[in-house]
Amino acid sequence: MTTDLPTLAINTIRTLSIDGVQKANSGHPGLPLGCAPMAYVLWHQHLKHDPRAPQWFDRDRFVLSAGHGSMLLYSLLHLTGYDVSLDDLKSFRQWDSKTPGHPEWHHTPGVEATTGPLGQGAANAVGMAIAEKFLAHEFNRPGHEIINHNTFALVSDGDVMEGVAFEAASLAGHLGLGKLTFLYDANHITLDGPLKLIMTEDVGARFAAAGWHVLHVEQGDTDLAGLDAAIRAAKDETERPSIIVINTTIGFGSPKKAGTSGAHGSPLGDAEVAATKTALGWDPNAKFLVPAEVKAHLGDAVQRGAASHAMWRERLAAYKVAHPELAAALELAIKGELPAGWDQGLPTFSGAAVATRSASGKVLAALCAKIPWLFGGDADLGGSTKTIVPGGDFDRTGAGRNLRFGIREHAMGSIANGMLYHGGVRPFTATFFVFSDYMRPPVRIASLNKQPSIFVWTHDSVGLGEDGPTHQPVEHLMALRAMPNLHVFRPADGNETVVGWKFALERGHGPTGLVLSRQDLPNLTQPGAPGAEKGAYVLAEGSDAIIIATGSEVAIAMTAREELAKQGVSARVVSMPCWELFAEQPLDYQRSVLPADRHRRVSIEAGVTFGWREHVGDRGITIGVDRYGASAPAEVIYEKLGLTPAAVVAAVKKLIAAG
Amino acid sequence: MTTDLPTLAINTIRTLSIDGVQKANSGHPGLPLGCAPMAYVLWHQHLKHDPRAPQWFDRDRFVLSAGHGSMLLYSLLHLTGYDVSLDDLKSFRQWDSKTPGHPEWHHTPGVEATTGPLGQGAANAVGMAIAEKFLAHEFNRPGHEIINHNTFALVSDGDVMEGVAFEAASLAGHLGLGKLTFLYDANHITLDGPLKLIMTEDVGARFAAAGWHVLHVEQGDTDLAGLDAAIRAAKDETERPSIIVINTTIGFGSPKKAGTSGAHGSPLGDAEVAATKTALGWDPNAKFLVPAEVKAHLGDAVQRGAASHAMWRERLAAYKVAHPELAAALELAIKGELPAGWDQGLPTFSGAAVATRSASGKVLAALCAKIPWLFGGDADLGGSTKTIVPGGDFDRTGAGRNLRFGIREHAMGSIANGMLYHGGVRPFTATFFVFSDYMRPPVRIASLNKQPSIFVWTHDSVGLGEDGPTHQPVEHLMALRAMPNLHVFRPADGNETVVGWKFALERGHGPTGLVLSRQDLPNLTQPGAPGAEKGAYVLAEGSDAIIIATGSEVAIAMTAREELAKQGVSARVVSMPCWELFAEQPLDYQRSVLPADRHRRVSIEAGVTFGWREHVGDRGITIGVDRYGASAPAEVIYEKLGLTPAAVVAAVKKLIAAG
Repeated sequence: MTTDLPTLAINTIRTLSIDGVQKANSGHPGLPLGCAPMAYVLWHQHLKHDPRAPQWFDRDRFVLSAGHGSMLLYSLLHLTGYDVSLDDLKSFRQWDSKTPGHPEWHHTPGVEATTGPLGQGAANAVGMAIAEKFLAHEFNRPGHEIINHNTFALVSDGDVMEGVAFEAASLAGHLGLGKLTFLYDANHITLDGPLKLIMTEDVGARFAAAGWHVLHVEQGDTDLAGLDAAIRAAKDETERPSIIVINTTIGFGSPKKAGTSGAHGSPLGDAEVAATKTALGWDPNAKFLVPAEVKAHLGDAVQRGAASHAMWRERLAAYKVAHPELAAALELAIKGELPAGWDQGLPTFSGAAVATRSASGKVLAALCAKIPWLFGGDADLGGSTKTIVPGGDFDRTGAGRNLRFGIREHAMGSIANGMLYHGGVRPFTATFFVFSDYMRPPVRIASLNKQPSIFVWTHDSVGLGEDGPTHQPVEHLMALRAMPNLHVFRPADGNETVVGWKFALERGHGPTGLVLSRQDLPNLTQPGAPGAEKGAYVLAEGSDAIIIATGSEVAIAMTAREELAKQGVSARVVSMPCWELFAEQPLDYQRSVLPADRHRRVSIEAGVTFGWREHVGDRGITIGVDRYGASAPAEVIYEKLGLTPAAVVAAVKKLIAAG
Repeated sequence: MTTDLPTLAINTIRTLSIDGVQKANSGHPGLPLGCAPMAYVLWHQHLKHDPRAPQWFDRDRFVLSAGHGSMLLYSLLHLTGYDVSLDDLKSFRQWDSKTPGHPEWHHTPGVEATTGPLGQGAANAVGMAIAEKFLAHEFNRPGHEIINHNTFALVSDGDVMEGVAFEAASLAGHLGLGKLTFLYDANHITLDGPLKLIMTEDVGARFAAAGWHVLHVEQGDTDLAGLDAAIRAAKDETERPSIIVINTTIGFGSPKKAGTSGAHGSPLGDAEVAATKTALGWDPNAKFLVPAEVKAHLGDAVQRGAASHAMWRERLAAYKVAHPELAAALELAIKGELPAGWDQGLPTFSGAAVATRSASGKVLAALCAKIPWLFGGDADLGGSTKTIVPGGDFDRTGAGRNLRFGIREHAMGSIANGMLYHGGVRPFTATFFVFSDYMRPPVRIASLNKQPSIFVWTHDSVGLGEDGPTHQPVEHLMALRAMPNLHVFRPADGNETVVGWKFALERGHGPTGLVLSRQDLPNLTQPGAPGAEKGAYVLAEGSDAIIIATGSEVAIAMTAREELAKQGVSARVVSMPCWELFAEQPLDYQRSVLPADRHRRVSIEAGVTFGWREHVGDRGITIGVDRYGASAPAEVIYEKLGLTPAAVVAAVKKLIAAG
């Protein structure tokens, strides 16, 4: 075995990783073998972190965007003193272990992001760097650098190929995120073979075109000094984000598989593990071996981290004295708690009809006045989504809190996830509802993570009118209701919109989608829309039938109810802005709204009827849009597609006739 | 009015476009005003097309990726002699008109792609150019250039910002699609304001990095010679795709709105329309005016098109003589018809358990042997999706039929749409089912278009095991079943997989998703899986209860049935591989499978239970996964999450106990 400590440390990372994969008989050995040198240099010589306080706010962030290489990260966490034991490494990819197949945020101490779906981590890192820049501008004061840390992401060929990563990179260059660095593992191999079969572009030049500082390390397998110098240069560049293109050998050390896709996604096999260890100067029979000197060498991260952390605590103490109000606000922001009185002064709605997107805009403006770290924006539709917030655009200086994401919906969602990973800010994002499809992957990850992202989705149905079927969501409500942990809130009017926003903000453990109309909707509720906070409630009483509706169709239900009353039929109208919230209510309450013995039920919603059987029951009738929309004025579309009071009346009467 | 014919023609395009938008009082006037010059030069001086035969196979393709500028396209179609009348232009954005808000394929003669969601059209154009290259290589012979046309796309700032467009561009550069040209309308304005607020990258340099030939036209508003020269240079470059960066003024001519976002997405207003006309030297009071000389000038496209088309017909006649078999095959390919005997020799399955992804791989290989224009591939997971087809990789020469899309799922779906728009090929695409989220926007457009795209989605549930929740679909089945026109087919074994493929291929009017297991599944059916072609069928009889299952859970249902039989309970098992297909069957058949009076029903599917109420009814029990998955071996996950025969048995007995 070599006595060169860095090499020994690197080989420890390598062998732990391949041992973990081999024991699980599942996983990706190639990336850890190739990336161990850059990871070692970064973690040992640069990364500011406190393994015993993984949540230290001013730590550097490290995102393994290439999440399939998770054993690299777990090995690093173990070796630098996080609460990840050798036994945890031995439980890689097993039920309930700390070391799942891909890194999961809040599942493993020190894991900063849930990664695996390629491109996500790269975009998350951009979100982290945005949050850092915003908070530094908001809270730092001369002589008081409370927020000052770097964000690093290890990205793979697959990451840079994914559109989401480049959308995020383009925005990062635009915003001049100088504290962001990508370490690009250019190993020239993907799962199916040599990279050249699928990509031949000059990635460095592409990032340079987007305003990035581009560095190269030609011998990433061995050139530790070069890696160190490049990371240093990246940190020294403060006006542009940096990408270090690092040539590596996937599966480094494996005699039969190094430099091939055979090392990518399958265990090496026992014999090849042993051969790799031999080639690395390791004992081929040793498993999960951590030499004592490596334990000491990498384990000193604990002491160094504690010292950095202590210095920061001192700075924070001085800051608290000099700027007590700011310090208190920062503390709240870090905890993610809403300031006292945050929901005071929210608008109420009565009288004139108003689009729920416009009502939402008023609510958001009021909220921003109270919550300084409510920070977000839109994908170039702010004028339509009504989400442009006061305080100017967030820009290269870090000032402003209206974040223009550009026409980059996918990155927008992933960047918001990154902002939440970072903490200290509460992001919201906005686009047309139909484009929720473009950002579905990060919406899913926010839901998986139980992160409280807020999605403002406007133009929520065929009611948007002339833009036509490409812009008219029909299946999106159901497609998103199917996603675990996501709450979809589609308010019927301005007051329900206020309830939706309050719910979204108070929800700590999961994302909320606010689904809002383009068109004006009559005011149907009292201020506070009592009952809406339960997800569904009786808006108007009636005994002969129940009409269930959401959003813009509640008004249609109410008109139908009036018409039915004229004909001697008494119908209850249930407004159901949020299915998931309703499902969380006590069964008694649910039964009080939709009594089991009242089977005459009609639903109306401007979307597919798929899924509504849950609420209307076997004998109910569903009214909706089981086709794509059409380009025409909204009222024409509603008429042509049968989203009318008359259709509801007919359905109710049909049910009554049936008994 | 100017007597300069080109200017007159350009201003006719401009004024028709703003008149259409103004009459509709809805739409985007800015793009047509700015892009009329480039469109005029392209359509009048370059585009090979036959307005009276819009489906002429060897025409050049023109995609308006910036679909919001649809009035530009409709004006061009009208002026060059397509079946789009002045009355059609006056019905812009009205119910049932030929001129919807955004271009819709097969809705308007001459519209080559459904665009509007940004980035899609750019990727579609890449798909068209791929199809052209593939077919040219497949069918052209020395002296017989039957397939030889260019693809042009007009792309906007928004298009180039979207990740999907760059994914596609990266692949286009890699494949050296020399007959592809993007006309990039660099107008420096987006809906919400100046582009510089959201993007500052060097787009030309970015495309150059991806292997594109980059050209510039500085004065795109006026420099017709420059536009002509650039398009000519783009056509002359045959080894690389070309992008022409064309500086334009959005809303050109509008005194108050030119060069501002005010011209982007809203009608100019009557007064500003008049002022714009005046500024253009037009009669401010004239509406939908087409000067006679412009009608003649642009209308000559009909004669020129007919002449080109006639020459091609002559070439085709000669080709038919020289290469009769090839010509017959080409004819079939163009019609999109399956060759005789295409489904002969498909594999059957019995005996050993097989993963449906592996069964699918065998079916696909057999199909490829019979259908030369079945052409597709995967997003760098071909080894896992089992979709690598014989015949080598499609490459820069045009040879090969295994298309490596790279790690670019979104572009993959959009490129497949482009291949279908082009015609002559039948595309399939493959990735892990969880990544269907990445490609959801093009899946939606294929569904909207009723295009027969085939999506192979493998690793379809928590049954994929150790990769964990980021890779385990749970909500995807329901989220896709909610999408109108898409058929989701999840076979239970190898024989059902054959049925799924046959269905997908025979389906002419809509896409099909084949949802396949990673894990081995026992063989449960006879060859041909009789009944599977109806979407759901009785796999095993029983009288006390009905167990409904799909895919990998059918085997669990069958085991439960056996266990129940031991306990004296007789359960019917319904295999339901395709909900949509079942819903299309006569009601009698549906009732025979799920009789209305048999209410003891249990569903089991390794995904969310959301939506299953439709089939189990008010009193049924649903077994599924209403949470995200976990990283562990598959069998452990199934046990822990209760996807077991025991759970089914318990549910059936509970229903029996309830009466």
